[in-house]
Amino acid sequence: MTDLRKKLILITNDDGLHACGINKLIETIAPLGKIVVVAPNGPRSGMSSAITSTNPIRVTLLKEEEDLKIYACTGTPVDCVKIGIDRLLPRKPDLLVSGINHGSNAAVAVIYSGTVGAALEGCIIGVPSLAVSLTDHSLNTNFSEAAKYGKSVAEKVLKEGLPKGICLNLNIPNIPKVNGLKVCTQTTGHWTKEFEEMQDPSGRNVYWLTGEFFNEDPGNVNNDEWALTNGYAALVPLHIDMTAYNFIEQIKKWEE
Amino acid sequence: MTDLRKKLILITNDDGLHACGINKLIETIAPLGKIVVVAPNGPRSGMSSAITSTNPIRVTLLKEEEDLKIYACTGTPVDCVKIGIDRLLPRKPDLLVSGINHGSNAAVAVIYSGTVGAALEGCIIGVPSLAVSLTDHSLNTNFSEAAKYGKSVAEKVLKEGLPKGICLNLNIPNIPKVNGLKVCTQTTGHWTKEFEEMQDPSGRNVYWLTGEFFNEDPGNVNNDEWALTNGYAALVPLHIDMTAYNFIEQIKKWEE
Repeated sequence: MTDLRKKLILITNDDGLHACGINKLIETIAPLGKIVVVAPNGPRSGMSSAITSTNPIRVTLLKEEEDLKIYACTGTPVDCVKIGIDRLLPRKPDLLVSGINHGSNAAVAVIYSGTVGAALEGCIIGVPSLAVSLTDHSLNTNFSEAAKYGKSVAEKVLKEGLPKGICLNLNIPNIPKVNGLKVCTQTTGHWTKEFEEMQDPSGRNVYWLTGEFFNEDPGNVNNDEWALTNGYAALVPLHIDMTAYNFIEQIKKWEE
Repeated sequence: MTDLRKKLILITNDDGLHACGINKLIETIAPLGKIVVVAPNGPRSGMSSAITSTNPIRVTLLKEEEDLKIYACTGTPVDCVKIGIDRLLPRKPDLLVSGINHGSNAAVAVIYSGTVGAALEGCIIGVPSLAVSLTDHSLNTNFSEAAKYGKSVAEKVLKEGLPKGICLNLNIPNIPKVNGLKVCTQTTGHWTKEFEEMQDPSGRNVYWLTGEFFNEDPGNVNNDEWALTNGYAALVPLHIDMTAYNFIEQIKKWEE
């Protein structure tokens, strides 16, 4: 019976419902099944896996068609996923796609990204989940290649599924013709020169986040940053179990 | 030369500067070195690794003594760590301690926790980092056992360091006498019944986050939830590389 039903697909993002990226994603993914969009009502970039517990969350149904429902949500990307699956969808979806993000979520950005946070949340709940990002922050960039690769990976996930506890992080370089898809590892690195100091109109000091990514392993051809720099779409499987298993033995001696 | 200097220790949390937990931590860690506190000016629970990029951040110096400086920050826990290390501290600290959190950050809570987010950020920047949480949400609970275990692990980290890319997540059960310290793995699980539906004063529907943790592997004696339930302090080493290495081969065939 299940196989005859249309696939149910949850779409979200962290740039908000009005962003070009999510609208291109909805249009591209629509042929794959029944789409429910639950996305923030405004920008939530850099929200990581934040959840809203001190305030209530509001949800507004904006569109209701046969195979497309769109809800705006006042919460974070993770709130959107939680409330979508717990309250708005008729059943657990067959797939969650988060994006298309305006800007790269490669390397250590997985830790800060709301787009990736949403995919990790789908994964925690047991839904095959995929985050898709384009390495360009501009509002009206061309999402064609990103959408093409996003759809292709989404189809593979719908067909083959994903193991429990694992989701996917896909980044696409902002070039007219991508060289292909490479399966990669998360690049090790950190940001430097992270703040600009400026003064508000009253002359008081404020700090504004900025920064440059420092790649700690630039020569590693397995890394997602290497793939992107060399014109490939980079696909990194992520897991939600953050335990550093190989360090457990070393600190067993600390046990009391 | 370095060894003769006092250790420099950065303290933060996600409950905000006024919480009992961080004040107990400051008092307990103070004998270990020179303390700089950079903590949110109010509650930031569940902020995960969120960063503030669309607004400027303000920092206020509240206390300046020989070996203790306290700054209040308008940002998230991760913002506090970033701005502390990038702008406020004289050098990279020898240790970062985040907490003591009011409430458990065991199991999958590592993904949502601002307390753990701060420790992960320290780790990204290359500072040995430790998150400490007590499994009790009340404002005026007894933090003595949590502080004792937190200090003991902090001393071990100061002495032995931590490998690059690995930080520690320590949870202490809320009982008068803890049985000891156990090195554990992150419990697999998820939350159920996540929202309560209610009406605002105008009669409009809102959703409020709540939920019950469902332990997917309750019999596993290596898990942090098992340790806590059985009266042990649970120490889990976490790594910031989220790559699911054991799944890479399986999706190599998706490469184009």
